[in-house]
Formats: sequence, structure tokens, C-alpha cells
Amino acid sequence: MSNTTSNNSWLLPQGIEEALPAETARLESLRRNILDIYSSWGYQLVMPPMIEFLDSLLTGTGHDLDLQTFKLIDQLTGRLMGVRADMTPQVARIDSHQLKNDAPNRLCYVGTVLRTLPDGFGSSRSPFQAGVELYGHGGIESDVEVLCLMVETLRASGINEISIDIGHVGIYRGLTKQAGFNDEQEATLFEMMQRKAIPEIQAYLNAQSIDKKVADMLNALPELHGGESCLQDAEKQFSNADVSVKDALSYLQQAVTKFKQRVGDVAIHFDLSELRGYHYHTGLLFAAYTPGEGQEVARGGRYDDIGEVFGRARPATGFSTDLKTLLNLSQQKVALTSNAIFAPADDDPDLWSAIQELRAQGEKVIQSLPGQKGGAKELGCDQELKLASGRWIVD
Amino acid sequence: MSNTTSNNSWLLPQGIEEALPAETARLESLRRNILDIYSSWGYQLVMPPMIEFLDSLLTGTGHDLDLQTFKLIDQLTGRLMGVRADMTPQVARIDSHQLKNDAPNRLCYVGTVLRTLPDGFGSSRSPFQAGVELYGHGGIESDVEVLCLMVETLRASGINEISIDIGHVGIYRGLTKQAGFNDEQEATLFEMMQRKAIPEIQAYLNAQSIDKKVADMLNALPELHGGESCLQDAEKQFSNADVSVKDALSYLQQAVTKFKQRVGDVAIHFDLSELRGYHYHTGLLFAAYTPGEGQEVARGGRYDDIGEVFGRARPATGFSTDLKTLLNLSQQKVALTSNAIFAPADDDPDLWSAIQELRAQGEKVIQSLPGQKGGAKELGCDQELKLASGRWIVD
Repeated sequence: MSNTTSNNSWLLPQGIEEALPAETARLESLRRNILDIYSSWGYQLVMPPMIEFLDSLLTGTGHDLDLQTFKLIDQLTGRLMGVRADMTPQVARIDSHQLKNDAPNRLCYVGTVLRTLPDGFGSSRSPFQAGVELYGHGGIESDVEVLCLMVETLRASGINEISIDIGHVGIYRGLTKQAGFNDEQEATLFEMMQRKAIPEIQAYLNAQSIDKKVADMLNALPELHGGESCLQDAEKQFSNADVSVKDALSYLQQAVTKFKQRVGDVAIHFDLSELRGYHYHTGLLFAAYTPGEGQEVARGGRYDDIGEVFGRARPATGFSTDLKTLLNLSQQKVALTSNAIFAPADDDPDLWSAIQELRAQGEKVIQSLPGQKGGAKELGCDQELKLASGRWIVD
Repeated sequence: MSNTTSNNSWLLPQGIEEALPAETARLESLRRNILDIYSSWGYQLVMPPMIEFLDSLLTGTGHDLDLQTFKLIDQLTGRLMGVRADMTPQVARIDSHQLKNDAPNRLCYVGTVLRTLPDGFGSSRSPFQAGVELYGHGGIESDVEVLCLMVETLRASGINEISIDIGHVGIYRGLTKQAGFNDEQEATLFEMMQRKAIPEIQAYLNAQSIDKKVADMLNALPELHGGESCLQDAEKQFSNADVSVKDALSYLQQAVTKFKQRVGDVAIHFDLSELRGYHYHTGLLFAAYTPGEGQEVARGGRYDDIGEVFGRARPATGFSTDLKTLLNLSQQKVALTSNAIFAPADDDPDLWSAIQELRAQGEKVIQSLPGQKGGAKELGCDQELKLASGRWIVD
């Protein structure tokens, strides 16, 4: 690729996009729409910085995000900075440090993040990330609020067929704790669970000296996915599990019941070994899918510990998505009407007043430039300002 | 600084800001307001990418921008990329390549740019840049349109006392051409002109073997600034100048006359040696100032050649500004009323319907979370949803 592009200085790096007027108009409209929705639920907009010192940006977030983060040298201090690859940890820092508030705190954000490598084939390296975070409440209701807002965001984007994958990190955590795993064992098995590599998981568990009952439960985990019935299966399979595992199962069940009461027609798919994003997540974990897109279109969950490294651990839950992906998948019919008024190139002060008045009323008025190529039609105007009986009127 | 910050992982790099809810609410409101104004003048929003290959990002822009640009390695190709430090050249590329249109093309943009070093003491390295660019027209009217939009932007930001510095690159260019200067001589003298270093300029001109009449005109240039009368002085001083110099003077005069007819109460200050931004500018150059801020708050000008390196040279004029700076200088009184409604933590489906209906009507409704700290007051709510005679009402 580098050979063919070397003389084409306008080609963009793979996965880096620009948005031209037709797309930008839709994106801006969606952006305003969802920020207004978040505001109507009490979420306040914050704008985390595009770059930060690396230790602040990556604290508590794990190796995946480090690999995804572009590094820069701060020429003023010589310290390493990173370009944000995910705004969630930044917003957590803002909650911990800037907003001294014990009451629940609702924050939202929208903006570009950059990633060193695409997530998959054809993926963006510059998502236009939007999301909400709710701090200061550790119960089911805050997770449900965030789940509802994720669905509202997708619906506002014109995505109507929604399926939610949902799980709870506490199940895997509780079982590995019961197995007496150290961090390395937990991480090794975690990686296999991510891939649902069942034969590998069995072989690995056989090789560890752990209680057979616990090994059986861990072996069962990757098979526990599907509809409601998978929760009953889990209850049977995990009858010998620690109370933390049973609590997590019960939490999951209650959250989904409450969520379904509120959002109506959304397909739910349980997946008890779903652990993506696990590195900073601590409770409920969820992702949204829609037909025609293999990867998730939004994701979120609970991450109660993240603020601790900034001196203030409090409960947190949130979700994020990429507005450009949502627009690409939108089923909304696009009717971009121009409705612009063309004004002649004339120095008459009355014309200028007429133009400015129309603009103040919200009309789009494009004034011709002397000698310009193209006229009203080329500029997308469907009306014209004309002088009739000494007055400028729209025709 | 690095010693004192090493344990404070939340401190931001100097000149890198985050925006918390109170500031963000104002910034978002201003952002929408000015994009709506640009749209009412026929300007279409584009979103240039945050990063590009360096050769594409810096082509035709000069050394200053190179120094200001953070460099990154593209891990997919090994090529050097840059983080945008100025969106103007990016938008010019979009006009050249993406929009095949001979008619005038009006584009606008808003977004964060990053700079390696602050412009001056206390300056931002992450301005929230907004601006407009008008392509495809080489006359006074397009420059005046851009000047008017610059003033509209400042006024929409609550900046009412505006003073405009204005000059024309063609005067300096014409005189150095008349002097027979090569590129190095022109650049050396340019640097002295920027600093208005009059004794250095005199010494330098004495040392060159150029026509005394031309040397006198170049010597006069840094003194030619002030009100309207400076244009009459210039006409006298430049009576022996090439026609290109006289044309530039006349263009400047006509543009200012037309501009003043349109915008009313704006102070104009001519500065014929004002050359900042000169590297890609080719005609009119202007900057806006307001009392209380030493640096300019918006700047722009004509840069007809910039698209050439992308295969399509056409006339161009535009301006840009930093919305965060404008907000800091705004004289608008901030009245951020919350007007939020507090709803209890109750599972009653009727309550949920009432909440969703209010939100759909544009109201802000915050639902309490069971066991949360703080109530209506702590969440900034001035009303409450209450059950009265079996119905949920706002009280």
C-alpha cells in the first residue's frame, strides 16, 4: 500500500475517515439529538482532553488500551503523553477529582478517539465515541438506567432491531476465586474463555490441582449462553458455588427483568462467559448488536473500582458507542432537503437587510459572488430573492 | 514541574484543558449557535480527520505548522502521521479532492486541534477551532463575506468591542519583487517586518544593492499603520511602486469600505506590514482583537494557491478562531438555570410513563436511585414528580 500511495498525498491512513457535508449533516443532527436525550435524563456533558500524560490516561485500564494508545512526547516536560483511545477512564478521573459530589453524578461525552490499530477488518481507528457514565450508585437501578439509554441511543440513530448480550463478571471472578487461582491462572483462563476455546479450557483445568466441583463449574461456563433458560441451567450448575457467584446470577436476573419492563421489544441473549472489557469491569457487562453488523455496536457495564487510583473509588456504570457506525447502520431514510434561497450579487443595502433578516429567521441564504461559476441550481437553492416593485421578495 | 506532578496522575499537561459541565454547557450552546449561523449563510459542515499522513497534512503550509504538529508512527504502514494543528489546509484538501464543483464552495468546521507548543504565555495547546472557508471566488465580495462572518462569530460569542487589524500581503510581495529579492532575502526581511524591527530593516536594506526608491518604500512599510489616513500616506509613498502594489492597496481600500457598510460598529486598524500567517496567504490578511486580550481572537485571509499541491488551485478565503478563548472573553451574562424535575425511585409503570413523556417534551427528569446520597436539591432539581390522587404530577 505504501508504494501506491506515496504520490497521492491526499489519501488518508487506513481506518482514518473524514466526513463530507452530506454525512456530516446527519452526524451533527444525530449528535445534537442524543446529547439532548442525555440531557433530558439529567446527564451533563463533559469534554475530556484529547491528550494526557500517559500514566494518568492508562492508570487502572490494562494492557489492551495501552496497545491501542498513540504515544507522544510533551515537548514542555519531556514526559510521555497518550492520545485518548477510550473516554471512559477520562470521565472517571473527572468524576473523582473535579466534581466533589457525593450524590449520584451523571456525565456524558461525545468526541473522536484514536486507536493505533483497527479492532477488526474494515474497522475505524478514529471512532466518534459517545456515551454516558453514572457514578455514585451501586445497585441494579443505575445499570438499568444506562441500559435504557443505550437502547434510546440506538433507536434515535434509526437502529430498531436490537439484540443485547448480557453477562456478569462476578460469576467468573467468584469461580476463579473459589478455585484459588492466582492472577496469572485467572488471566490465562480468561483469555481462553474470551475465545470460548472449550477443549483448551478443559485441558487447562485438568492440569490445575483444583477441586473437581469447581473445575466442573468453570468448564460449564462457556456453554451457558442463550435465552432465559440459561439462567435456570446456571442455578443448577452452580449449586455448589460461593455466595458471590449466586449473588451475581440473581443480580443479572433482576436487572434484565427491570430492563425489559422499560424498553419493550429488545432481544436479550445471556452469555455468562462474556468477559470483553473485563479489565476494568466489575459487575454487569453488556453489548448491543444489530443484524448486518458482526461486531457489537455499543457496549458497557459496571466498573466500580476505576476511580480508586485517582483517590476516590465509587460505584460506576456506563456505556459507549461510535456514532459513525450507528449512522452507517441506520434504517432512517435520509431526506436532506436544501431549502436555500439564492440572492443576487447586488450592493443594495435593502437587499443586505432582507438577507440578514431571513438568516435571523433561520433561513439559509446564499449570496452570489460577482463572476462566479454556477448559479442558484449549482448551489442547491430552490428559491431566489428578487426585486419586485422596489421590494426584495423571496420567489 | 515533572517532580511535583509525578504523583498527581490527574494533572493535565500545560495548555491542555478539559471542560467540566458548567463550561461545556456554554461551549455546546455556542458551538450550535455558530454552526447554525454558518449554515444560514450556506456553509456546509465538514469534519477533517484528527490525524493524516504528514506529507498530506503539511504540504504547502510552511515550517511553522511543521514545528507545531505532533508526529505519530502509523503502525499499519510505518509512515509518519501528524495530528492536525490547523484545519484550514485540511479543508482545502477536501475542497480540492472530494468536492468536484466549479461553483463557489462554502465549508465550515469546528473541532479540537493540538499543538506541540503554546503560542504564548498561558496559551492553549488544544484550541477548539472553528472557522469557515470559501473556495472558488477571487474577488472582494468573498473576502468581505468571510470578514462579516468573523464579526458575527465574535458577536454571537458575546464579544461586542471588536477591532480589526487588516493588511494585504500583495504590498510586501510586490515591493520585494520590485527590489529583485530572492527567496532568502524576502524571508529574512519578512522576519524583521514581523517584529517591526525598524533599525534592523534599515540596516538590512542599506546592505542590499537595490534601487534607492524601492528601499525607501520597503523602509516606509512598517510605519504604515493606523486609521484610514494611512492608506492616503501609502498612496503617496508608493507612487513609484509596481502596479501590483497599487492594485493591492486599492483592493484593501474597497474591501474595507464594503465591509464597514455591512457590519457597522467595528474599529478598523490598517497595518500594511502585518504579515502573520503569510506562509500560505496571498491577499487580504486580517485579525480581530478585543480589549483585555493581547493576542488576536480570530484571524484569516486569502490563500489562493493552497489547493494547487492537491491538484486543484482555486481562489480561497477564510477565517478561524478558538471557541474556548471566545467564551473566556465573552461579556454575556451566564444564567444557567437547571429546571430539572426529580422523580422518586418507584417501580410504578405509570411513573415511568410520566417520566418518559416529560423527557420527550424536552423536560429534564432525574430519577432517584434507591439508597442514593442527596436528593432533589443536591441534583439541582427545582421540581418533583409526586403522586396525587392516583396521578403523577409535577409539583
